[in-house]
Amino acid sequence: MKAVLIIADGMADVPLEELKGKTPLEAAQKPSLDHMAEMGICGMMDIIAPGIPPGSDTAHLALLGYDVMEAYTGRGALEAIGSGIDILPNDLAFRCNFATVDKDFMVVDRRAGRIGNEDADKLAAAIGESLKMDPPEVGDVLFKSTVQHRAILRLSGPNLSSMVSDTDPHKTGVKVSKAHPLEGSREAKNTADILNKLTQQFHEVLRDHPVNKERKKKGLYPANIILCRGVGQLPEIDPLTLLYGIHPAAIAVVPLVRGVCKTAGMRLIPVPGATGTYETDTIAKAKAAVKALRSYDFVLVHVKATDLASHDHRPEKKIEMIEKVDGLTAHLLSHLDLTETFIAVTADHTTSSIKKEHSGEPVPVAIMGPSVRRDDVEQFDERACAKGGLSRINGRDLMPILVNLLGKAEKAGS
Amino acid sequence: MKAVLIIADGMADVPLEELKGKTPLEAAQKPSLDHMAEMGICGMMDIIAPGIPPGSDTAHLALLGYDVMEAYTGRGALEAIGSGIDILPNDLAFRCNFATVDKDFMVVDRRAGRIGNEDADKLAAAIGESLKMDPPEVGDVLFKSTVQHRAILRLSGPNLSSMVSDTDPHKTGVKVSKAHPLEGSREAKNTADILNKLTQQFHEVLRDHPVNKERKKKGLYPANIILCRGVGQLPEIDPLTLLYGIHPAAIAVVPLVRGVCKTAGMRLIPVPGATGTYETDTIAKAKAAVKALRSYDFVLVHVKATDLASHDHRPEKKIEMIEKVDGLTAHLLSHLDLTETFIAVTADHTTSSIKKEHSGEPVPVAIMGPSVRRDDVEQFDERACAKGGLSRINGRDLMPILVNLLGKAEKAGS
Repeated sequence: MKAVLIIADGMADVPLEELKGKTPLEAAQKPSLDHMAEMGICGMMDIIAPGIPPGSDTAHLALLGYDVMEAYTGRGALEAIGSGIDILPNDLAFRCNFATVDKDFMVVDRRAGRIGNEDADKLAAAIGESLKMDPPEVGDVLFKSTVQHRAILRLSGPNLSSMVSDTDPHKTGVKVSKAHPLEGSREAKNTADILNKLTQQFHEVLRDHPVNKERKKKGLYPANIILCRGVGQLPEIDPLTLLYGIHPAAIAVVPLVRGVCKTAGMRLIPVPGATGTYETDTIAKAKAAVKALRSYDFVLVHVKATDLASHDHRPEKKIEMIEKVDGLTAHLLSHLDLTETFIAVTADHTTSSIKKEHSGEPVPVAIMGPSVRRDDVEQFDERACAKGGLSRINGRDLMPILVNLLGKAEKAGS
Repeated sequence: MKAVLIIADGMADVPLEELKGKTPLEAAQKPSLDHMAEMGICGMMDIIAPGIPPGSDTAHLALLGYDVMEAYTGRGALEAIGSGIDILPNDLAFRCNFATVDKDFMVVDRRAGRIGNEDADKLAAAIGESLKMDPPEVGDVLFKSTVQHRAILRLSGPNLSSMVSDTDPHKTGVKVSKAHPLEGSREAKNTADILNKLTQQFHEVLRDHPVNKERKKKGLYPANIILCRGVGQLPEIDPLTLLYGIHPAAIAVVPLVRGVCKTAGMRLIPVPGATGTYETDTIAKAKAAVKALRSYDFVLVHVKATDLASHDHRPEKKIEMIEKVDGLTAHLLSHLDLTETFIAVTADHTTSSIKKEHSGEPVPVAIMGPSVRRDDVEQFDERACAKGGLSRINGRDLMPILVNLLGKAEKAGS
């Protein structure tokens, strides 16, 4: 027995006026998702708890069965891991931005004019050189640019604590924040000191760097400061294999989701053409999932584009992306042996196209496969699934439910 | 106001091909259970948590309102209590088998050819005599045969710990296991030593016992070793009377279920003809329940046979047993004053006739009685009840719900 779990990011929504009171899921043409609802058991799921809008990181931790309150140790480390950076249990990882400040350290642009990868990589290399010449007194520092203005700062060594504030003031027109300790410990003070020292050191490297001189000449914002936020440590979680006796893989592009999956001990399957954007090749993902299910017994397939369309308030685009998820589902339905495969589909959270933000409404979920207690729901959407046989479950329940269907659940008691 | 709770062991199931996609409950003729659904309020219940297959012991602890994680301290003590053996708070109880080993202590048969009660009782008496002559240095030891090859070993005294491994290797063709401590404490080491010493001592008593000589002559496996497993201690739980202000009794045959009920402070009502097998006299149980409700205000009636049929993969037999439970229900409906009695019916877990094992799907539950919020469910089964007014509840919620209906719930706050 095998299982595949399709997670369409932010696919659930609220009724929209421009869709005549329908949600994008209700308005979309999605025969395969509806087929899953019809043949399977449906319900609604509070990813974390009723009314709580989940982040993408906490949502995926919950969907993989973890207690978010226990397992969530900040976004930094998860995103770093997802970007291919090694994070050890005691390391601190910060999400960083290349940004622009004036001579008084006032933030002019938090993304240095959305600097491109090429410039950012050169500047990150210069920072790397400076760290070799002037390393911190204890431990080591890694700075790596990832995509556009985004970068990761990793601190390793003794006397570190995640109880420090951001240097990113999270808005423009104000000064870069001083990192300060959030508790009385020596470690917190030491970490804040390091962060402030590095902010100054990086600024000196960047300020007069040829790349920035060139940018100024072209009328572009110079990337002359590094802003840090979202410090995180590696969550101390048991891998899925240990928890459930499964052999899991994941197909995902977004670094944060990749980071959660990798931390949970899932093999990440690369898929050419999967981009995390509207243009992503969902059929390539489906094909990769079918192939992965030959070697793995649990495969998670994540699609990001549904969420993007809601943040951008583009309901028509969201419908189009839902229909792409339907195409992915169709491919799975026609290429998997349904007598020995369970397919589940859900969203990691509601993203309200009105608020253009994650929202706390529950998400629909459908599970089909051999011997599930099929109900009489015939459509996969927020209102039809509310009448389903699963009733209203919690995000953390999904994995145990799937593991039970796979016949791998351990009896509690005797 | 009084209440009776019918628990049909493992009655819930999954859709079965041989029943044309119906579950045994859906396929059975059960007018009285359906009447309860029609007149009452229905729902689905996760005994422990979604997807988690409960054991019979943990399931009944949960159904009686206890936090299983807190209250479950191993099967041994519960089964011992259910077999009529006194267990005090610091005692250790092991589930034991009379078994057969060769001269190198290799296990040949884990049940000594399913030895009968008569032989087992004689051998247990011989072990008892040997314990009088050669008692352990501190504390005391009780060994009692129960049914067929089954027996209980009770250790009492200071310096004991339940952190010891089984001597039962759980398979044949391997040597009897040495008990070893599972933690570094002096108590764990001491307990392992006692267990190993007793295993040797019991073997010496059994090896040349006339009963075994006779068995060998007849070509039967000699019962020449005692294998111990499933060590347990008395759960420290408050009795139901204290928790809910009720005066409870239970009608159950299976030692493990009896043990849970007794530990919860329920009076055990003996019922001639109730056997825990397919032949059990369910009408005798119903009659006993009606009579018990004169003296007690809460009576639990447990029927085992539904579970047996699923473990044996006999869907038709399971249907027959469900119909016997329906007969029991019919008797209750026609002999109780329904203006002052609540009747609830459920299962302690799903037993999948496909897996032939306890499974993690929720179970249906129906409650009828004066002033319940009757819903429009008309059948008592896994899919009809999923549309009921109780929605999806947890096993631990059932007792508070019943106690509230009885008018005995204490207000939280003022």
